[in-house]
Amino acid sequence: MKHHVNFTPGPSQLYFTVADHVREAFKEGIPSLSHRSKKFEQIFGAATDGLRELLNIPTNYHIFFTGSATEIWERLFQNLVEESSFHLVNGSFSKRFHEIGIQLNKNAQKIEVPAGQGFESNVKIPNGVELIAVTHNETSTGVSLPLQAIADIRSANPDSLIAVDAVSSLPYPSFDMTNTDSVFFSVQKGFGLPAGLGVWMVNDKCIQRAETLTARKISTGSYHNLATLRAHAEKNQTPETPNVLGIYLLSRVVADFLRRGIDNIRKETDYKAAVLYQALENCPHTSPFVKEKQSRSKTVIVADCGEHTEKLSAFLATRGLHAGDGYGAAKKTQLRFANFPAHSKEQYELLADSIKEFTI
Amino acid sequence: MKHHVNFTPGPSQLYFTVADHVREAFKEGIPSLSHRSKKFEQIFGAATDGLRELLNIPTNYHIFFTGSATEIWERLFQNLVEESSFHLVNGSFSKRFHEIGIQLNKNAQKIEVPAGQGFESNVKIPNGVELIAVTHNETSTGVSLPLQAIADIRSANPDSLIAVDAVSSLPYPSFDMTNTDSVFFSVQKGFGLPAGLGVWMVNDKCIQRAETLTARKISTGSYHNLATLRAHAEKNQTPETPNVLGIYLLSRVVADFLRRGIDNIRKETDYKAAVLYQALENCPHTSPFVKEKQSRSKTVIVADCGEHTEKLSAFLATRGLHAGDGYGAAKKTQLRFANFPAHSKEQYELLADSIKEFTI
Repeated sequence: MKHHVNFTPGPSQLYFTVADHVREAFKEGIPSLSHRSKKFEQIFGAATDGLRELLNIPTNYHIFFTGSATEIWERLFQNLVEESSFHLVNGSFSKRFHEIGIQLNKNAQKIEVPAGQGFESNVKIPNGVELIAVTHNETSTGVSLPLQAIADIRSANPDSLIAVDAVSSLPYPSFDMTNTDSVFFSVQKGFGLPAGLGVWMVNDKCIQRAETLTARKISTGSYHNLATLRAHAEKNQTPETPNVLGIYLLSRVVADFLRRGIDNIRKETDYKAAVLYQALENCPHTSPFVKEKQSRSKTVIVADCGEHTEKLSAFLATRGLHAGDGYGAAKKTQLRFANFPAHSKEQYELLADSIKEFTI
Repeated sequence: MKHHVNFTPGPSQLYFTVADHVREAFKEGIPSLSHRSKKFEQIFGAATDGLRELLNIPTNYHIFFTGSATEIWERLFQNLVEESSFHLVNGSFSKRFHEIGIQLNKNAQKIEVPAGQGFESNVKIPNGVELIAVTHNETSTGVSLPLQAIADIRSANPDSLIAVDAVSSLPYPSFDMTNTDSVFFSVQKGFGLPAGLGVWMVNDKCIQRAETLTARKISTGSYHNLATLRAHAEKNQTPETPNVLGIYLLSRVVADFLRRGIDNIRKETDYKAAVLYQALENCPHTSPFVKEKQSRSKTVIVADCGEHTEKLSAFLATRGLHAGDGYGAAKKTQLRFANFPAHSKEQYELLADSIKEFTI
């Protein structure tokens, strides 16, 4: 097969072990395995235990599977919000998260900054909101929220639950989970897996909040409410017939990541990001879209390429390097580059060299 | 690989072409394909156009994808029921469908008959219920609802919407879709695919009902409400990042079914069911669980084996024939056999011969 690297930020490049794991899955009969079998319970346990180790998830956190991270947006409101939530909005995905609250008839409030900008640590959040929703990595703009900002939000709002959308950043960020109540992602980005699986982590405080809503006769949903998810997860099961193959592949890639070492993955991510940001700054035809260095994402890097966007994209493609389009209205003026564990240092060096050699 | 046939009714035996389609998918880059690409739209279109042809779905019906059929249960209540639904309950899955209505704070009423029994055509349904929920094939008991019963329910209740759970029967039944408003299934049963995808078909009347609820400020959900699903499906897209590989595999297996011919599939299903029911009747140690012949499912065949259950299951396993356990409390006294397009006539003949040869 022709050399081809997919830098689109999701679905993105598959992790290099996935094709082998799929072959193994077919050999072992995983695609037709009963989700009520012992073998499935082992796979569920391997996936969740592995994630717990990889991401340093405390024991008061539970790990559940959904169909997508989009589903998790909806479930967060259903299970944790009776009245009000507050959203830090700085791009299309944080905006959609907020809109889902409105659709579900919640009083979803927001603070919004222009695309490409991040948030200060001292965001003013109204007293008494039940849920504060932050997007750790805004996939549309390449803006990341510093971990210290999450810690500061926690200190200033000790009574609110904090949900962190880490869809396009995990496994890179080393969250202090005590500063969050729920963290979630989907597998087709940083984990380099086929799409069709969301991973939802919640602590006991979330479970209790959902129980409180139920006690007040407020529906928290059905098969994927927190009580039902937890009752099944305690048996290493899911309420519904899940994406069994997806959970199996996740368990295998998490094991691969553990062997490689999360510290190595993080260091390599830093290195690759530095290489690309430097290339974008040095190239006369490109610049990083995000100006404040502390807000620049390490995992989704957005380049302003103006009128040269199409030409640069085509030039990179001749080398087998497939950039992601800019998001929405920025399609004609920006390119996006996923920097996930599936992308090697060599691929990033080739990408940076190619940008250096790009002439108009 | 050792000869092994999986007769569990879901996840079940993979259709024999699936492994090849997965190899092709990896060659074509499907597992990391963007769900906003032209190529994805073609795959979505191939899957839905193929289903339309295979199942003779009229143009006033829309086809949507969800994470599971369990999700569709929930979405039906959210989008179609403001107050009340009515359920024909005759086993664990129709019971769960009803319970989800209760969990969502609907006035979900029911008529219930003992496991193994079906419904008469003249089921008395209260006037004015918004949704009548019928389970075409109760996977736990092997009871099927005759198509005439659905037609009769329609005639007697012209003002209610009718939703048909066909999870473990499609593509076998030849529904007259004008007698239904919504039909749904999941791919890991009759379509012989890896689990992780539900297929939800609704007509324009359902879309209008959801619009009415929205106009009355009743939340119908968010990313998977009918309006959002339809807006995206019109572009051959999904609201969220879906199980792209699952939709691709469905499009390919549907094309395989079309080449084989739905009439042939239905005839072979009838033949295989007849062979097994006869073997169960003739064997002194087994009998069909469902006594009324007209209620006997063609696609999930349940055998009463009493004290010989474990021994028969072990005997069949020595021949590579893996029966499904009885459901729930019937685990120790029944076996279940899926009769899906993935199961060949030869496998069914071997199964029947083996039951004939079984001695205690």
